[in-house]
Amino acid sequence: MTVPGVEVAQSVLDAQPFSVLLGARVEALSPAGVVVRVPFRPELTQHHGFAHGGVQAALADIALTFVGAVALGPRVLTSEFKINFLRPSGGETLVARGSIVSAGKRQAVTRCDIFAVQAGEEKLVATALGTIVTADVPPAGGHG
Amino acid sequence: MTVPGVEVAQSVLDAQPFSVLLGARVEALSPAGVVVRVPFRPELTQHHGFAHGGVQAALADIALTFVGAVALGPRVLTSEFKINFLRPSGGETLVARGSIVSAGKRQAVTRCDIFAVQAGEEKLVATALGTIVTADVPPAGGHG
Amino acid sequence: MTVPGVEVAQSVLDAQPFSVLLGARVEALSPAGVVVRVPFRPELTQHHGFAHGGVQAALADIALTFVGAVALGPRVLTSEFKINFLRPSGGETLVARGSIVSAGKRQAVTRCDIFAVQAGEEKLVATALGTIVTADVPPAGGHG
Amino acid sequence: MTVPGVEVAQSVLDAQPFSVLLGARVEALSPAGVVVRVPFRPELTQHHGFAHGGVQAALADIALTFVGAVALGPRVLTSEFKINFLRPSGGETLVARGSIVSAGKRQAVTRCDIFAVQAGEEKLVATALGTIVTADVPPAGGHG
Repeated sequence: MTVPGVEVAQSVLDAQPFSVLLGARVEALSPAGVVVRVPFRPELTQHHGFAHGGVQAALADIALTFVGAVALGPRVLTSEFKINFLRPSGGETLVARGSIVSAGKRQAVTRCDIFAVQAGEEKLVATALGTIVTADVPPAGGHG
Repeated sequence: MTVPGVEVAQSVLDAQPFSVLLGARVEALSPAGVVVRVPFRPELTQHHGFAHGGVQAALADIALTFVGAVALGPRVLTSEFKINFLRPSGGETLVARGSIVSAGKRQAVTRCDIFAVQAGEEKLVATALGTIVTADVPPAGGHG
Repeated sequence: MTVPGVEVAQSVLDAQPFSVLLGARVEALSPAGVVVRVPFRPELTQHHGFAHGGVQAALADIALTFVGAVALGPRVLTSEFKINFLRPSGGETLVARGSIVSAGKRQAVTRCDIFAVQAGEEKLVATALGTIVTADVPPAGGHG
Repeated sequence: MTVPGVEVAQSVLDAQPFSVLLGARVEALSPAGVVVRVPFRPELTQHHGFAHGGVQAALADIALTFVGAVALGPRVLTSEFKINFLRPSGGETLVARGSIVSAGKRQAVTRCDIFAVQAGEEKLVATALGTIVTADVPPAGGHG
């Protein structure tokens, strides 16, 4: 299997307007794991100034899917995922570290942890577990 | 229990910069359920022009939490949720319809379905199930 | 689609030694939903005399899978599910009521609610949401 | 924090009739993690002779809860969990290896991997992620 480089992965993100809106940056991508970073900024907060849960969920979705793509190839879909929020998330950056749990030919189970980084210190703020499928496995509602 | 009006709920969303970034609008809010709408626009897509999974997850997070707030009061946190993606999501608007599964004094389990609306027709594109807790139940990582 | 009768579904359960150990009985099976019942008995309890969470999870697994089998055909696997426990579960019987959320050709998303029945009164004790796939979609770890 | 010994933990399991029915054995218990073992036997199978998904889910429930009890103390409840099934599960024994993700005072997020052991070789067959709460956090449906 050839793992695409970080530049290729970033170009995929750059082709997703919502990932651009989030400001997501791929930092590492290999069978050993994926690192995706979102610089924290006021537009990403909820009403107490912490990162909105939706931002963390979106970042988890991106990281889980990229881990799946490393295992299954580029044409993948997220079937489902679960996220647990562990503590309020502030700081300068959100970092998702994803890794593979198990992969077959058409389905992979992936996990990621999300950290808030402040002054170089990382705090775990959320964890997620999900299922990624190749695009030839039609989703539960069919295509269309 | 006094359920806040739609205007109050919208003012909560308007105080969340990320909800403003998404363009989320509260359309209904009662013990019978919550309706939250996100007008679809190019900034919210992935690379095939469908709504990004992260947008659907963020909308689910908002709807699940609002259902919990109707049951538990305004000071609530999302503890966790799961989302299943059912089909590609296009159209003009995303609508989340949330409802309560069960509520105690400090914890509620809520669900929501997300629909893509096109020319007045709604298609189910995702479903989510989550746990909302009052803010006095410290999250799993503690506050800090 | 021909939905197998309750007798056929029960014969499937009767061929699963663990379902026999639980005492699971199929009570209804149609595209409108599935009802599976487990008579409560001391062997199924935890240390406070309530139904063990594992019993509820096993019942959810059975009900979610049967709903998937009605939609997809008999050769199905449970890919994953989530269960939320809502209150202690006593009474005379546990009843799972499952229904379809969405189905494609090879994947279905299903949900079920679990009730404890006492003196004819049903109390919701758990809810679950899961993904069922046809057996030709290899699981994430492959076959073997 | 004093972690109860394996004998104390086993006595808790032995007081749960359903855990006895499963044949669950605590093998290790420390802040570093929990190991729970279920000897495989025909009564625990589905119709193809593999471990029933309900058995794996029940074992996950036990392991996740024990990890939570190490972090939070003995009076805990499982709030919810998710399980992904990765491959058919045969062999001589099922082993769940649980660990803590994050813990506060009243809530812990825990994970576990389940392995099928055959001739000394372990294969990962399922993974789970859940939330454990202290018994003073009333469940979502209240007590009763």
